[in-house]
Order: sequence, then C-alpha cells, then structure tokens
Amino acid sequence: MSTDLVIAYIGGGSRGWAWTLMSDLAMEGALRGVVRLYDIDRQAAETNARIGNALLSRPDVVGKWHYEVADDLKSALRGADFVIASILPGTFAEMASDVHAPEQYGIYQSVGDTTGPGGVLRALRTIPMYEVIGNAIRDYCPGAWVINYTNPMALCVRTLYEVFPGVKAIGCCHEVFGTRTLLAAMVRERLGGAGVRGAQDDVPGADAATMQDIEVNVLGVNHFTWLDKASYGTIDLFPHYRAFVEEHFESGYEGTESESWLNSYFASGERVKFDLFRRYALIAAAGDRHLAEFMPGRMYLRDPETVRSWKFTLTPVSWRVENVENLKQRAARYASGAENFALKPSGEEGVKLIKALCGLGSFVTNVNLPNRGQIKGLPESSVVETNALFARDSVRPVHAGRLPPQVEQLVAPHAIAQDTILRAAMARDAWAAFPAFLGDPLMTAVPADVEALYATMLEATAKYLPDYAL
Amino acid sequence: MSTDLVIAYIGGGSRGWAWTLMSDLAMEGALRGVVRLYDIDRQAAETNARIGNALLSRPDVVGKWHYEVADDLKSALRGADFVIASILPGTFAEMASDVHAPEQYGIYQSVGDTTGPGGVLRALRTIPMYEVIGNAIRDYCPGAWVINYTNPMALCVRTLYEVFPGVKAIGCCHEVFGTRTLLAAMVRERLGGAGVRGAQDDVPGADAATMQDIEVNVLGVNHFTWLDKASYGTIDLFPHYRAFVEEHFESGYEGTESESWLNSYFASGERVKFDLFRRYALIAAAGDRHLAEFMPGRMYLRDPETVRSWKFTLTPVSWRVENVENLKQRAARYASGAENFALKPSGEEGVKLIKALCGLGSFVTNVNLPNRGQIKGLPESSVVETNALFARDSVRPVHAGRLPPQVEQLVAPHAIAQDTILRAAMARDAWAAFPAFLGDPLMTAVPADVEALYATMLEATAKYLPDYAL
Amino acid sequence: MSTDLVIAYIGGGSRGWAWTLMSDLAMEGALRGVVRLYDIDRQAAETNARIGNALLSRPDVVGKWHYEVADDLKSALRGADFVIASILPGTFAEMASDVHAPEQYGIYQSVGDTTGPGGVLRALRTIPMYEVIGNAIRDYCPGAWVINYTNPMALCVRTLYEVFPGVKAIGCCHEVFGTRTLLAAMVRERLGGAGVRGAQDDVPGADAATMQDIEVNVLGVNHFTWLDKASYGTIDLFPHYRAFVEEHFESGYEGTESESWLNSYFASGERVKFDLFRRYALIAAAGDRHLAEFMPGRMYLRDPETVRSWKFTLTPVSWRVENVENLKQRAARYASGAENFALKPSGEEGVKLIKALCGLGSFVTNVNLPNRGQIKGLPESSVVETNALFARDSVRPVHAGRLPPQVEQLVAPHAIAQDTILRAAMARDAWAAFPAFLGDPLMTAVPADVEALYATMLEATAKYLPDYAL
Amino acid sequence: MSTDLVIAYIGGGSRGWAWTLMSDLAMEGALRGVVRLYDIDRQAAETNARIGNALLSRPDVVGKWHYEVADDLKSALRGADFVIASILPGTFAEMASDVHAPEQYGIYQSVGDTTGPGGVLRALRTIPMYEVIGNAIRDYCPGAWVINYTNPMALCVRTLYEVFPGVKAIGCCHEVFGTRTLLAAMVRERLGGAGVRGAQDDVPGADAATMQDIEVNVLGVNHFTWLDKASYGTIDLFPHYRAFVEEHFESGYEGTESESWLNSYFASGERVKFDLFRRYALIAAAGDRHLAEFMPGRMYLRDPETVRSWKFTLTPVSWRVENVENLKQRAARYASGAENFALKPSGEEGVKLIKALCGLGSFVTNVNLPNRGQIKGLPESSVVETNALFARDSVRPVHAGRLPPQVEQLVAPHAIAQDTILRAAMARDAWAAFPAFLGDPLMTAVPADVEALYATMLEATAKYLPDYAL
Repeated sequence: MSTDLVIAYIGGGSRGWAWTLMSDLAMEGALRGVVRLYDIDRQAAETNARIGNALLSRPDVVGKWHYEVADDLKSALRGADFVIASILPGTFAEMASDVHAPEQYGIYQSVGDTTGPGGVLRALRTIPMYEVIGNAIRDYCPGAWVINYTNPMALCVRTLYEVFPGVKAIGCCHEVFGTRTLLAAMVRERLGGAGVRGAQDDVPGADAATMQDIEVNVLGVNHFTWLDKASYGTIDLFPHYRAFVEEHFESGYEGTESESWLNSYFASGERVKFDLFRRYALIAAAGDRHLAEFMPGRMYLRDPETVRSWKFTLTPVSWRVENVENLKQRAARYASGAENFALKPSGEEGVKLIKALCGLGSFVTNVNLPNRGQIKGLPESSVVETNALFARDSVRPVHAGRLPPQVEQLVAPHAIAQDTILRAAMARDAWAAFPAFLGDPLMTAVPADVEALYATMLEATAKYLPDYAL
Repeated sequence: MSTDLVIAYIGGGSRGWAWTLMSDLAMEGALRGVVRLYDIDRQAAETNARIGNALLSRPDVVGKWHYEVADDLKSALRGADFVIASILPGTFAEMASDVHAPEQYGIYQSVGDTTGPGGVLRALRTIPMYEVIGNAIRDYCPGAWVINYTNPMALCVRTLYEVFPGVKAIGCCHEVFGTRTLLAAMVRERLGGAGVRGAQDDVPGADAATMQDIEVNVLGVNHFTWLDKASYGTIDLFPHYRAFVEEHFESGYEGTESESWLNSYFASGERVKFDLFRRYALIAAAGDRHLAEFMPGRMYLRDPETVRSWKFTLTPVSWRVENVENLKQRAARYASGAENFALKPSGEEGVKLIKALCGLGSFVTNVNLPNRGQIKGLPESSVVETNALFARDSVRPVHAGRLPPQVEQLVAPHAIAQDTILRAAMARDAWAAFPAFLGDPLMTAVPADVEALYATMLEATAKYLPDYAL
Repeated sequence: MSTDLVIAYIGGGSRGWAWTLMSDLAMEGALRGVVRLYDIDRQAAETNARIGNALLSRPDVVGKWHYEVADDLKSALRGADFVIASILPGTFAEMASDVHAPEQYGIYQSVGDTTGPGGVLRALRTIPMYEVIGNAIRDYCPGAWVINYTNPMALCVRTLYEVFPGVKAIGCCHEVFGTRTLLAAMVRERLGGAGVRGAQDDVPGADAATMQDIEVNVLGVNHFTWLDKASYGTIDLFPHYRAFVEEHFESGYEGTESESWLNSYFASGERVKFDLFRRYALIAAAGDRHLAEFMPGRMYLRDPETVRSWKFTLTPVSWRVENVENLKQRAARYASGAENFALKPSGEEGVKLIKALCGLGSFVTNVNLPNRGQIKGLPESSVVETNALFARDSVRPVHAGRLPPQVEQLVAPHAIAQDTILRAAMARDAWAAFPAFLGDPLMTAVPADVEALYATMLEATAKYLPDYAL
Repeated sequence: MSTDLVIAYIGGGSRGWAWTLMSDLAMEGALRGVVRLYDIDRQAAETNARIGNALLSRPDVVGKWHYEVADDLKSALRGADFVIASILPGTFAEMASDVHAPEQYGIYQSVGDTTGPGGVLRALRTIPMYEVIGNAIRDYCPGAWVINYTNPMALCVRTLYEVFPGVKAIGCCHEVFGTRTLLAAMVRERLGGAGVRGAQDDVPGADAATMQDIEVNVLGVNHFTWLDKASYGTIDLFPHYRAFVEEHFESGYEGTESESWLNSYFASGERVKFDLFRRYALIAAAGDRHLAEFMPGRMYLRDPETVRSWKFTLTPVSWRVENVENLKQRAARYASGAENFALKPSGEEGVKLIKALCGLGSFVTNVNLPNRGQIKGLPESSVVETNALFARDSVRPVHAGRLPPQVEQLVAPHAIAQDTILRAAMARDAWAAFPAFLGDPLMTAVPADVEALYATMLEATAKYLPDYAL
C-alpha cells in the first residue's frame, strides 16, 4: 500500500497546506504514489501540479510522487487511499464580513474562523460543502482515511460523520504543537542552564529540548484545547510553568516565534495563555488569538486597546488578501522555475500520520474526533481534541479523562453549540443557528442589535447560502 | 408506618413552608405522628410548636400531629422517617449583600438565591451547613426520606449526596406548578369558550381546567426548568401556547397571579417566559424573576428599566426584612390564639409525596435528583429536575430525554458550575469558586471589577464562612 | 383524535389477541374509529371483521368500531394512528421443528418461541418480516404508535427500531401481570385473614387484593423479567414472599390459575419461580415455562421428569394445532351468530394504553423498549422490559436501576444474544447466528451435535428463510 | 525519581516474578534504588535479598539495586514509589482443592486460578488479602504505582480500587505476548520465505519477525482477551491467520514453545485458539489452557480425552508442588553462589513500564484496568484488559472499541461475575458467591451436586476464609 498510494487533495490549489505536504512527501522515502489535486480554482491546482511534478527529477527528493489535476470531486476521490481537505469556504469577501462586521457593535475577533460570530457564519457556509464532500467519499472511496485541515475544524469533521457515519475522518491542527514549542522553550530557559540532561540517550538535554520532547495530555475542542499534564522526561512541567508564568506574566514571553507580536498577526506574548493558567490552573494549548475568542468578550477582546494590552493582534482580512497575492506570485515563480521550491521539514505531522496509517510506525498525537468517551463531561458525538494512537488503518483515542469543572464550564457550551449550528445548517435554516450566535461568549450586544448584526452578516454571505431559508 | 410517623423539620421555626406543612398535614386524614421542629431560632420553633399543637383539638383537623421542639439536630433526626429541610442560610444581612452588592457594577438580580453572584455566595455559606445535615442524617436516620426546600436547591441536594451517597434526598420546588397554572389559564382562555370538554369523566372541561389537568415533561435544573411537551387531555398545548405567546407578548399576561407584577415582587407579566419561547421554542417553566437570572445579563436584567420593560421586578431584601417582621407578629397571634390559623390547601405537594412514599398512592411529579441519565446531555451527578414516579419507599426518575441544543447550551454551564462551587466549598477554598462567579452569564463586568466585587461579597458574608480560606 | 382513530391490525385474523382487543374496545366508551385487519390468511381476517362489525349493533357495546379487511400492508397502514402487530411467523410446522427437534439431543423447551434453540430459529424467520413491517410503517404511518405482541418480543421490537429509528414502537406482554396476580393471591392468603385494610379508600382490603393493587419495579428482558420491589399499599411484599416461598416451595402453589399445572400447558406450580427467588433473591416475573427456558438446561429442563418435578409442563406444538382448529370452529360460530361473542374484561392493557397515548389518562405499566439507560448494566439499544409512563403521545421509561450481579449475569447474555441474532438475520447469514445457538444456556450438547441440530432446524424452516445464505 | 526509587515487593520471596524482576532491573541502567521484599515466608524473602544484593558487585550488572527484607507490610510500603504484588493466596493444598475437587463431578480445569470453580474459591481467599493491601497502600504510599501479577488478576485489581478508589493500580500479564509471539511465528512461516521486508529500517524482515513487531488491538478480561486487529508493518494479519488456522487446525501448531504440549503443562498445539477463531472470527489472545476455562465445559474441557484431542494439558497441582521444591533448591544455590544467577531478558515488561511511569519512554501495551469506557459493552468498573498509553505518572487506556456480539456474549458474563464474587467476598458471605459458581460455563453438574461441591471446596479452604460466614 505504501508504495502505490493515491492521495486526493480537496483544495489542491492551496498555497499553504499543499506546499507543506509536497515538501514533506518529497523528504519521506517510504511512501510514493499519486496526488490528485482538486480545486474550484483549477488554475491554482495546475500550478501546484507543475510545482509538484518538478520535484520528481530533483536529486534531493527521496519521496517520488506524481501530481495530477482532477476535473471534479468524483475523479479526485475514486479509489483514493487518503483524502486531504483544506479549502477556503467562500472568499475573503465573505471572510471580511465574518471578521469585521461585528466590530460596529464593539465585538472584535482575532481570527473569526472557528467560533464567535464569524465562526457561526463560516460554519453555515461550510457545512453544506462538507455534506457534498462526505457523500462523495461514501460513494467513491468509503475506506479512505480523510484528513481535514479546514476550519471550523470541529464542524467540518462532524459533518462528515453526520452524512457518512462510516467515514474514517480526522481533523489535524498544529496549535497544540505551538504550546509544546513554548514549553520546550521554557525547559531550555529554566532547566537548560541547570544542566538537566535528557532522560534517555535519544532525548536531548534540557538546553536543546524541542517540541518533540514535551509530552502532554490534551483535552478540549479545536483551538480551545487544554493540557492537564505536561512532562519533559521525568520532570513534571506544571510547577515550572507556574513559575514561568509568574515571571513573564506582566511583560509577556516572545521566545517561540521568529517575530514579535507587534509585527506579526500570528505571534503573541502568550499573555492570554498565562492569564488562563492563573485563573483556571490548566495550560491552554492554542495560540492566544484563538484562545481569546472562546472567552467572554469582556476579558481579552473587549476593544483593540485591551487586545494590545494582552499582547496579541487582530488579524485583518485585508492582510490575508495581500498575503495571497504574494503567494500567487511565488507560486508562479516556483512553477516557472524562477524560484527554487525549498525542502524543509514543516513541523506538521500529516505525512507522519499517513505513514502510521499505512503501518509504517505507530505513534501518539493529538487529533480531532467525535467524542466516544475520550473526554468525559463533553457531549458524546461532539468533535473533541485529544491524543490518539495512530497505527495501521486505525486511529484510537486515548482516554483523556475530564476537564476540571472550572474549565469544562468554558468548553462545554462551545461543544454544545456545534449541535445547534450543525442542525441549523443541515436543515438549511439559518435562524435556527441564531441561539448559538446570540449566546456566544464574545457577544456583548443587546438582543436587538444581535439580530440586526446576524441579518447583516447573513446577507453578506448569502451567495454561499444558496438553499438556505434566511 | 403511616400512622406512627416521625418527621424531623430542620428550620422548623419557618413561617412559610412550616405553616404550609402544618396546614396540609391537618387536612390529611391518612397520616399521623410527630413533627420535631429544630431551629437555631429556638423561640421560633417553640411558637410553631404551639401553633401546631393547638390544631390537635380543632374539629376541622383530621390529621392529628404532635409538634415537639428538638434541642439539637441529633435529637431531631434520630429515628426520623422523613426529614424536611428549609432553612435560611445566614441572615438577611448576608442576603442583602448577595443581592445588592453587585448593583454597583451594574449587575441586577431579581432573587439572588440560586444562581448569579448572589447564588454563588449563598452556596458557599450553605454547603458547609448541608455537610453537617448530611452527616447527621447518615448517623441518625440513614433510611429517612429527605425533602429539601432550601435554596440553592441543586447544591443543597447535591451536597447531601456528596457526603452521604446513600441518602434518600429529593428537592421540591413549586415553580413548575406555576407554569402549569399559567397553561391552565391559557386552556381556560383559549379552549374554555370553545366548549372543550374534559377528556375523562374525572377531568374538568376546559373552562374549569386547573394546574392538575396539565401534564408536562420537565427538563432542566431547578429554577431553570423547561417543558418540551405539555398536554391538556388529548390536546397538545404547544400550538396553543405559540398563539398565546404571540397574542400576549407585547402586553404581558397577568391572569395567573392575584396581584399585578407592578404591585408584587413575585408576580410577572410572563414576558421573559414568552421571549424564551420565541427564541428557544421550549416552554420555560419557572417564574420570570428566576428565569431571567440564568440568562446573559444583557438580556433581561441589564438595568432596572430593562427589568420593568419585561414586566417583572427585582425583589429587594428590604422587603424580605419587613415581611418577616409581619410574619413574626402573625405567628405570635397564631400562637396566642388571637388569630385563627386557617386551613386551606396549599397547592404544595409535600404531604402528597409523603403519602406516596408511605405507599398511600403512587404518582408522578417533578423533583430534583442527581442525574443518573434522566436527562441526557447534562452532567451525570449534577442535580437536575425532571418528573419522577413516587411510590412506596421509592422515587424513580422518568426519562426526560434531552434538551435541544439551543437550550442545552443555556442550561449545561449552570449544571457544570455546580461542580466548581461544590468542590470549592467542600475544600473551603472560596477563590476556587471564582471561575463560576466570573463566568456566570449575569456577569458583565471586566475581570478586575469582578475580583473586587467577589472580595467585597466574601467579606460581607465572612461570618458564615468561618473555616474558609478567603 | 380519540373519536376518529384508525387502528391497523397486522395479523388481524388472530383468534387470540384480536378477540381480546375487540372485546376490550367494545367495552370502552371513550374511543371509536376503524380497525383495519390485515392477515396473510385473508379469510381469517374476514371472519374477524364479521365478528367485529356484529358488535356495532349490540346494546351492551359502548365502544363503536368499524372493522375492515385490508388488502395489503400498505392499505392497512396508510394514515393509521395505531398499529398492532401479532403474527405467527411461519406455521405450526416450523414451530414443531423449533420446539421438538432439539429433543433428540436431550434439549427440552417448554415454549420455544423466545429463547433457546427454538427462539433463535423463530427469530431468523421473523426478523425479515419485521423489516418489511418497519419499512412500511416508516413509509405509510411514521407517526403511528406500534404495539407489538409477536414473539420473540425483544427482537421484533428491536428490528422495528433498527430499520426505522423514528418508530414509536413498544412491546406489550402480560407475563408480569401473572406474577402480580400471584402476589395478590399471596396478599389475600397471608394478609387477608389478618384483616389488613386497604391503604386508601379506593384500595380494597387485603382479603380482596387484586393484581392492580400490587405495585412493582420491573427489570429484565421479555419473559425473563424480575422484580426488585413489590408493594401492597404500605407493605413491602418481599418478607412476605420469602415466607410464602418457604411454605409452598416443596408442594408448589396453584392458587392463581383456574386449572392445575397437571391439566394445563400454561399453568404451573410456580416452583421454578420459587427456586429462582431462593437462589437469586429477586422475584422472577413471568410464567415458569418461560423462566425455565432462560436458565441452564441442567436446572429445570433437564428432561421431562425434571420438568414434572418442578411442576410445569412442556407445551407440545400438537396441542397448538389442535387448539387452533377448535378456535377456527368457534370463530365460524361467532361469525355466523351461532355463538355469542361474550364481552369480558381481558385483563390486558392494550386498550388502556391506547387511551393513555390519546391523552385519556396517564399511567405507569411495564413495557418493552430499547434500553436508553432505564436499566443500567444491560447493553444500550437491547430491548428491555421496565415500567414506563404512558401519556399523550409519549412513553417514557421509568428508571429501573440495575439488576444485582447474580441476576445480571443471567440476563445480560440473553440481551447480548439479541445483537448476534439481529445482525445475522439482517445480513441473511444464518450461520452468523450459530454462536448464539451454541452458547444458549439450554444447550447441553457437544459442538458437533449442536452443528448437526442447527443444520436440521434450518432445513425445517428453510421455506421461511428464502433469501438467507444457509 | 528514577535514580532513587523505592520498590515494595509484596510476595518478595517469589521464585518466579521476583527473579524476573531482579534480572530485568540488573540489565537496565537508567534506574536504581531499593527493593523492599516482603513475604509471609520471611526466609524466602531473605534468600531473594541475598541473591539480589549479590548482583550489585557483578560487572555485567548495570542496574544497581539494594534489596532489603521488610518486616511487615507497613515498613515495605511506607514511601514506596512502586508496589509489585505477586502472591500465592493460600498454599498449594488449597489450590489442589480448587483445581481437582471438581473432577469428581466431571469438571476439569487446566489452571483453576482465574475462572471456573477454582477461580471462585481462590478469589474468596484473595480478596480479603487485597483489601488489606489496598488499605495499606492508601495509608502508607497513596501515590505509588501498583503493579499486580497475582491471579485472579481482575479481582485483585478490582479490590484495590474498591477499597481505595485513588489507587494507581494496574494488572500486568504476559498472555497476550504469547499470542503476539504466535503471530510472529506465523509471519516468519508464511511471509518470511516470500522475502517480505521490514516496513521500516528498524523493523526486521518477515523472516526475523518477533513479538515486538506485531501490533494488536486488545479487548477482553484477563486470560480471556481477544484481538480484533493485528498487523505486521503494513500487513493485515487476519487473512493470513485465517489461512494459517485452516492449515494447522487439525494437527495443531507447536512452533512457539520450546517444548511440545505433550511434555509441558504450559505448551499447547493452539487448537483451542484456532477453534475459537473459526467459530467467533476474532483471535483469542491467551494460552489455550486459560481460554478453554472460560468456555462451556462441554467444549474443550469435557474430559481428559477431549483435552488431549485439543492438544493442551491439565496442569496438576502436584506438578506445582514438585516444581517449587526444585526452585527452592535453586534459590539456595543462587544465594550461596553455588549457581550463577544468569541475566537474560525476560520478555516481561515490568521494568519497561516502571521506566515509562518515571518518564523514561512512553509506550503502548496491554494492561488490566477498571473499565472507564475503553471497552464498550462490558460493565463500567469491571476490570478489563486493553492497550494503554504509559507515560510519566500516567496510564491512559486506549479506546479498544467493542467486542462483536458473538464474543461479547462469551466475555460479559465473566465480567459481571466479578461483581457477584467481589460483593460476596467483601461481605464475607461465601454463599453469596454461589450464583457465580453455579452459573460458570465450566459447570455441568446439576444444582444439588454443585451445592455439595461448593460446600466441599469451601471446607477445603476454610483456613483462609477466617471471617467468612460459610
């Protein structure tokens, strides 16, 4: 299987996850096969196919893959062993409304693609698309493993299971890696100088600790995940994190990103994460800009000034528009050979877990799956994020236990809101999702204003809600 | 058993539930025995004993009971068949802080004894008291049935089960009766004129429908209960309620109370209830002043003006102080014989369920019990309110099903907050309950203010938190 | 609804349940409408229609119903409010094999229609028929309440839910009534002489106690149900039953049947029930001939002599053949008017629960439903028997709790075997059910013999397994 | 922690598991500390201490441990980091009754220490001992990890959790390793010749496959465990196992043991395992002599001739008596230095999982733990065997899924019987366990004989049931 793989890539014109995959596949010698790129922007897929196929002849490429452009979903999926889904639901025009429309009512969002008002609207657009994808998987490749990267993660994965209960779908996200990276930085800072040595021969000493050396137990929903256990070798990291937080709480900590939060829409000073630890005693494990969106609006996203004081940023959609233009030009340079497509390990685990599912090395990592009891206290069937054991043709959740009540109280409403939004979207009844919109913790407006905002936002995305009752 | 009963009444100096019980017992001929009144205000208990014993010789009294004053909890409980608990945890001084202290931060509470900031503080005071009660029940009357009326209801009942898992405790509340009374009024108004006849010989026609004729399925937590099914004989009341709500939404409906909401701290125009139906499609089944407190502060309790527009009232503690003085004087008149203690059916079910537990007539009614699956989707062990079958020495929940997600999202956080508060109180760590305080939907203040408020409120009730770390 | 009802009767040619229903409907004045009789023996349905319609003009009939013969399932079901299903799956020829074929291997069955080798074979025949019925209900009357009387009860009900999860189906059985009748006889015998009076005005004294006066908590699977609580008014019946069992264990007790077990294939001396109480400490609540079949073959059904010593009987299929001939002749006499169709209360609850579902009187009784937690410790989804609250358009299980482990160990394997048989039947793979056949507690033969027996029995019923792989 | 460990060994005079541990510790350089040996046979513990301490000075020993003899449980446990429990409950005299007394009723047992009549009696003896151990752990080392090797495994572990719910206890057993070893032999036989290469560089080719290369999903109860998934690298082993079973079914397969089943009480021809696969379609994963005991007596243990035909053996207790004498002599030789204590990898994982719990290398292996949902369909709280993730101070079950019903029907009654036996033993009421004894699948006798047998066996072990009502 591992030498004759078919990967269907939905959203194959992507200039983010797709390039990451190409690079990681190229550096992995144990797998080979075909990647079928499918994208509604066919030209983007074609460009990526050119980029990918150019790798075949490069001497530094050990993983040999052919890239094809698929005409439609059916021809992409038929007989696929793996399906990767990473799409932009709608365009940046819709996303601009998702993120910025609420600002007129004083509601600020740092991302706007997962939760909060933007998350609700994006979900309404996305769920019907994922119904189509789920049905097509059932029809054309029911045994394939499906790896989703699209947000809103939990609802994308949930929709697949809803329309095709036999689907073998998982949702993958690198946010927890970011927090493990932060913990590794903390280990280097606090223990490295003390000369703490690696616990095993194959584990580096504390002064060289990396994300891989940090073991954690993960519980939560995507982008609002928590750690109730974190270790570096024999060392419990919680006491160290407590001291670390106290030390850096006021000033923030910027050791893990190449850029300061002042210059980057993705970096942060980790102050939200630190505050959550002080208040709730668990380590929140996602970027601050995600975490802040799950908390009451009066806490971290009250207004731009408050956001600045917590040392993270609001990512404007205008930046995304600009960024994609830059990437398009880079894609053209890659495709023409004007720029070399550099191979470097991405830090993502997509290829590693494809290997594991092929039988080439079991391992444990965090993943989004329907709750079958891996987290007690969150609703069965809601899609949750925990560790899971990846092995040949199987992903089995590891029992994560239960969140302490002070955190469960924060997470559970978001898990339940998945149900409200899912049912509304599957019934194509936009206002049936309004209770989730009205009740979101970010929402600070009075009901009449919330209704007006919702109507406005529905209107702005109406093109992508064709068969909805609005 | 039914002719030699021992009832221990904790809080037996009560001038509310105690008088109701005396009256109902006096009118029920199938039971007799002794009621042991225990109260930290011994004089109040003595007055009540005098009132109760005076009934023995009255010819209109068919239920013959002796009333005794117990010196302490132990002598009240030893060998009791039933325990009734209805206490005021602390005094009105503490309650004044619970209810009114948050107002300086713009947080208004209509009751302040169940949820919201006042509910948290009251729970911190009450849980240690219920630990004492639960331990004493285990030691002195482990087989007794315990009927709790004290608020916060869910946490009182929960604490009893926590300290003595074998306890046979239930929590009884009349709020659902109030909504069934409203539905009966609706039946009379909408169907009575149409000449709809009773479904059975023993059921009155629609023009004479009463609360007892309305059958409902109950789900929720105390004071935030919901109905997903309501019937009058063969008739589904949901379509009628929909029309009824539309008709009365703007003006409110005042048919079920003897007084207008303008003159009463307990009556309402039911507008909150109507709004909840329009938004969430289930019938909320408690008084509006309770319901409003479980919802986001920006909705119904934004400020006194908003409260008025929803046609309910904020019950000031000053009124309670005044009212209790009146009742004390009335108690004195009762005890001295200056005023006749009138017997009239209370509409409460305490005596009816004592009968059922004795084996004198099984029936189904709503009650608060730990969740053993009677409501799917709310945490196991949290105390929830559903129907239950009462029979000889048994109370068995009826499967209530699951709340739809748009309502579950509202209810679940309150059920989870029980855990946070319970653990904090049992650990005597007041600040461990702060996340529940901070995250309560009524809370609209920024974290720094919330901290200041919490500190102030803890201070105001410190006398009743003697062994807490504050 | 209650005056314009449509009842579809599948197996409407029945001379047992159908006549009971006719009689009970005729005596109930609150309901009227049409009963559509559908039977593959059309002539039997026509005879019943004649019998039923003749009642219309009788002055002693207060419940007026029209009886129609339906041409097919679709026309029987379309628009029905209630569906009653009581069919004979196959003929007595197949049943003769079910019951008697195992005897050559020393395996005796007293009924052979629910469990044991006969039960497995009957289930294989019946499940495909119930798939057809379930699909037709989904298509033609999805909102109807479905009352099943066919055995194997649990698997019939389970199949309906399997093919149409939205079905509102319940399984009704009178076996528990029989045990309540026995307990009433015990009350009369042991307490009647002592002058124990009824607990309430409307409850008769102990000397006149009837089945209705006995309240019980029911747990188990159909025909293998157990009581862990039984009351007569204020009296716990367990101590009395213990004494009663000790008194009558050796000789047996025959007070509840009109005939002695020596002369009847249905009566018994209750000795199996008494032995089960002595061994397992709960009251088994079904006829002894059913109970015996769920226990290891070496206990009560070892051989005919053992059966006699336990004072119950093996019901031969030859008797059923003879009996049905007698009933056919009686049916002809009823239809021609040669014999009067006598009205007498059947003791069955079918009509009472139709009334309750219409909204004409809620009550609690035992019923078979998929396990949604009403019995802890038995598999979710297996069909179990407990009390339930019947009300307008709803049947809600009452929490029955959990069987003690010594009984759960007996019951659980039967509940699990439902799964094995169901999956095998739905896959039309007869040998996939063989593990249930081999592992049945009645089975005492060595594997090679069990295989031979299974092959023989499949052959004998092959006509009714047309699309099976055998 | 890993360099200053305290291991308390209860049953430290053991000549099996203790020597294995000594050897494995001696070969592991990452750990060191003290092992406290506690045994009621103090001399045996002292001999082992001498053997262990002699290792300290050996140059081939990299793991340096001091061995001490503890005077009592308290001094063994106080402050321990790990507790190992491997005791013989009672003596071989009691075990002789357990195993052989039933033979007079035609009931044969191949081991007699886990299930069947012998298993019940042994459990009655053992549970009170484990209550003592559990209470002592709670009092003296509540944070220690407890590794149990004593049988009956499930009930030993269960008892610890029952008396001390906070205990961190696991049950370890090598039976699954044996089946993985068989699968490795199959891989070598069937795939090795075909030149199948290892999936990864660090995985050997098929001709050199070992147990470690076989990955499985484990479900069941100890000694009655099943695999529903088995892989060698990218290869699904189920089709290969099917062919392998067909090939070897008649003759049996003896490739995995050093001795033939004819000469060894532990080896087998795997025919029971093969038959179970043919009948139930899962791979049973324990030695045949264990598996056979969980199945109906008429299948594999009908009589010694049947046992021989299935190519396994009945282990007589006389052999154990003889064997222990040999081991005692060897112990003396080791202690005196007359014989060299050879170091060789045991294939056991005890030391590996101690390392993992210290933080020195996470891994996944099978283990016995209370069911928290890791196996659906088996009772919550019963101790079950599945894979789990071992990491620093944590053991988290991996979701194993659910047994198919034909296997669940076999396993569930054993899991439920744990409850019956546990409650009986904790209540010191021996006859309360009789239903488990009577209903065991091995039991083929009629009830009167079963009662006589039980009485006899209780008598034989009465010395070890001092505070029981017999």
